[in-house]
Amino acid sequence: MKIVNLDHISSNPLLPAVKTAMITAIEADLHNPSSQHKKGEQAAEALDQARRSVAGLINAATPKEVVFTSCGTESVNHAVKGVAMANAKKGKHIVTSNIEHNAVIRSIRRLKGQGYTVTSLSVDESGRVRPEDVAEAITDDTILVSIMHSNNETGTIQPIEEIAKITRKKKVIFHTDAADSVGVVPMDVQKLGVDLISFSSNTFYGPTGVGGLYIRRGTMVWPILDGGVQENNKRAGAENLIGIIGMGVAADHALKEMDDRLAHLEKLKSQLLQKLPGTIDEYIINTHPEHSLPNLLSISVQYIEGESVMLMLDDDDIAVSTRSACATGSLRASHVLLSLGLSHADAQGTLVLSFGIDTTEQDMDLFLKGLKKTVTTLRDISPLYKNRN
Amino acid sequence: MKIVNLDHISSNPLLPAVKTAMITAIEADLHNPSSQHKKGEQAAEALDQARRSVAGLINAATPKEVVFTSCGTESVNHAVKGVAMANAKKGKHIVTSNIEHNAVIRSIRRLKGQGYTVTSLSVDESGRVRPEDVAEAITDDTILVSIMHSNNETGTIQPIEEIAKITRKKKVIFHTDAADSVGVVPMDVQKLGVDLISFSSNTFYGPTGVGGLYIRRGTMVWPILDGGVQENNKRAGAENLIGIIGMGVAADHALKEMDDRLAHLEKLKSQLLQKLPGTIDEYIINTHPEHSLPNLLSISVQYIEGESVMLMLDDDDIAVSTRSACATGSLRASHVLLSLGLSHADAQGTLVLSFGIDTTEQDMDLFLKGLKKTVTTLRDISPLYKNRN
Repeated sequence: MKIVNLDHISSNPLLPAVKTAMITAIEADLHNPSSQHKKGEQAAEALDQARRSVAGLINAATPKEVVFTSCGTESVNHAVKGVAMANAKKGKHIVTSNIEHNAVIRSIRRLKGQGYTVTSLSVDESGRVRPEDVAEAITDDTILVSIMHSNNETGTIQPIEEIAKITRKKKVIFHTDAADSVGVVPMDVQKLGVDLISFSSNTFYGPTGVGGLYIRRGTMVWPILDGGVQENNKRAGAENLIGIIGMGVAADHALKEMDDRLAHLEKLKSQLLQKLPGTIDEYIINTHPEHSLPNLLSISVQYIEGESVMLMLDDDDIAVSTRSACATGSLRASHVLLSLGLSHADAQGTLVLSFGIDTTEQDMDLFLKGLKKTVTTLRDISPLYKNRN
Repeated sequence: MKIVNLDHISSNPLLPAVKTAMITAIEADLHNPSSQHKKGEQAAEALDQARRSVAGLINAATPKEVVFTSCGTESVNHAVKGVAMANAKKGKHIVTSNIEHNAVIRSIRRLKGQGYTVTSLSVDESGRVRPEDVAEAITDDTILVSIMHSNNETGTIQPIEEIAKITRKKKVIFHTDAADSVGVVPMDVQKLGVDLISFSSNTFYGPTGVGGLYIRRGTMVWPILDGGVQENNKRAGAENLIGIIGMGVAADHALKEMDDRLAHLEKLKSQLLQKLPGTIDEYIINTHPEHSLPNLLSISVQYIEGESVMLMLDDDDIAVSTRSACATGSLRASHVLLSLGLSHADAQGTLVLSFGIDTTEQDMDLFLKGLKKTVTTLRDISPLYKNRN
């Protein structure tokens, strides 16, 4: 079935080159990269190659600073809990924001149960953390600042470079959850100045179930998976070699094609923004006009429910989402949107529109046509809409 | 290159049907199983199917008792640390054995740093834990017993059913690391009586980087990866769907072909045992004659180093290992072999020979021929051998 996919943030299709590389790896029956015989060496070389590719994508000083994980969530858990455990003697205070992904929120919640304390910063009305708030929040007891690079529900990008200047001056470890940024927007860890970056392969058209954690040399962080000596002793467990090979190829392409992809996505996004006012009225744009991902737009359509829009569009073979897929099943309004100052009613009307390198202008037009029909139908039966002012 | 692979314990080749299923999944561009539109539902159904297959392999009461993880090591960390954290108010004592995999040893070591206490049981000279020792070790403070099902270096199988009778009576949670047993020997969680089982897909010819944790309903265990609501809220993180699909197909085949595989492997093992005395002398067999895996034999060739044997065999395109691939790079003698009562010198001469459903009698004969040549060459230059007795 041909489906218009405006839910790329939940899952991106695999690049053809990634598919080919993974299929070749499946057919090759690669051995265990830790084995010391020829069959092992062949696998180890494939693993090294992927690590070099991923290191190249973020401009790491050495591939050894890249640890492969099983997903962005594992990377976040590793960074947050690993820093907390390794630095517990130094302090137990963590600074974060109110709009983090559940991986950060729940990792920190777990740490609170172990005696750690947390300052969670609110964002300004544009959805951004104020660097001066971070500076103020840091105490002598602070061991970690964890602020996301871009938000997965609004696409808004945080002032990470500015925050890193503060954490470096104050000698506090800085982690950024960049699961929706790495491979989408240029990312240079030397320029960015952070110590730990979590990222995810599928964001740049590699397979799901593979992620990475950049650990700047010298950063005190313990493993969360203990066992064998894989990943330079930083993450135990047999590697998902087929997935990692796919991630490596995806990283090569993301780096090489970055400019073309950005141009394509930015064009789609600006077309969408231009055509929306002619399609529906009474909506709020939750995405920062300037500091945001090129592939995501969050809108809150007033007086109706996003969930209903999503289901009706699904009947027309158009996929969108209303929030992070990771939060599916939760009936509560998004904590991210409420943090922006949206009312519960407006938050419930939110659609997260995310597109990709395979999205066409025609896809966008099909979506807008479907959106117009859906919004009209739903507002016709909405008491909220009828009784508005 | 055609390599005789007697190092299946480090990595098994993929079943043809597993390859086909994974390639089909790669080509299908499955979406995020947590997404609520049609594309998500299709992915969710593939995930459910794999969960049913894996539940069937171990006879779980319901597929919900199976949690997919990124490897056996993650499963072990989840079980050991998850039980420790969830039951900390009840007690902080753990019972384990001296011959566990590093995933268990190092997870427990991490817990020791957090105030947990441990009783680590020695094994008898045949390499098995005595159930009565477990009974004696359990105190009012004990919250977890973790004893492996089969050892990855010797293949010896532990008396898990007997131990489970004790833990059930004493109401202590029992975890078994069955990473080298599930899918190789019949495993029925109802009969076995354990609460948690860690296992790994590659052991039964599925991909690496995928594992599972069986959690008996009602067992108190916390997640170690916090974040989204995946895996019935038991393990956050985007799923390695392609790998999980491969694991499901591998589980179906393992269950269906169990008897044939056992017959093939047992025949190979008994041929190897029969032919060894005519090939070399002065060696020790470390594998239990009766309670052991059908696909593994550990021998210690006296007066020479296993590492040298492995490297020379590698020149002849024969892959064997000397220890767990997870411990590669460590120069110390294996803790497992020393626990059996072997001298350091004998432990250094150990070869772990592991074979699979694709191994032929001809492979075994090629190995034995290579072994004879290698052992003769190495003993000719071994002062230990010349000066023996």
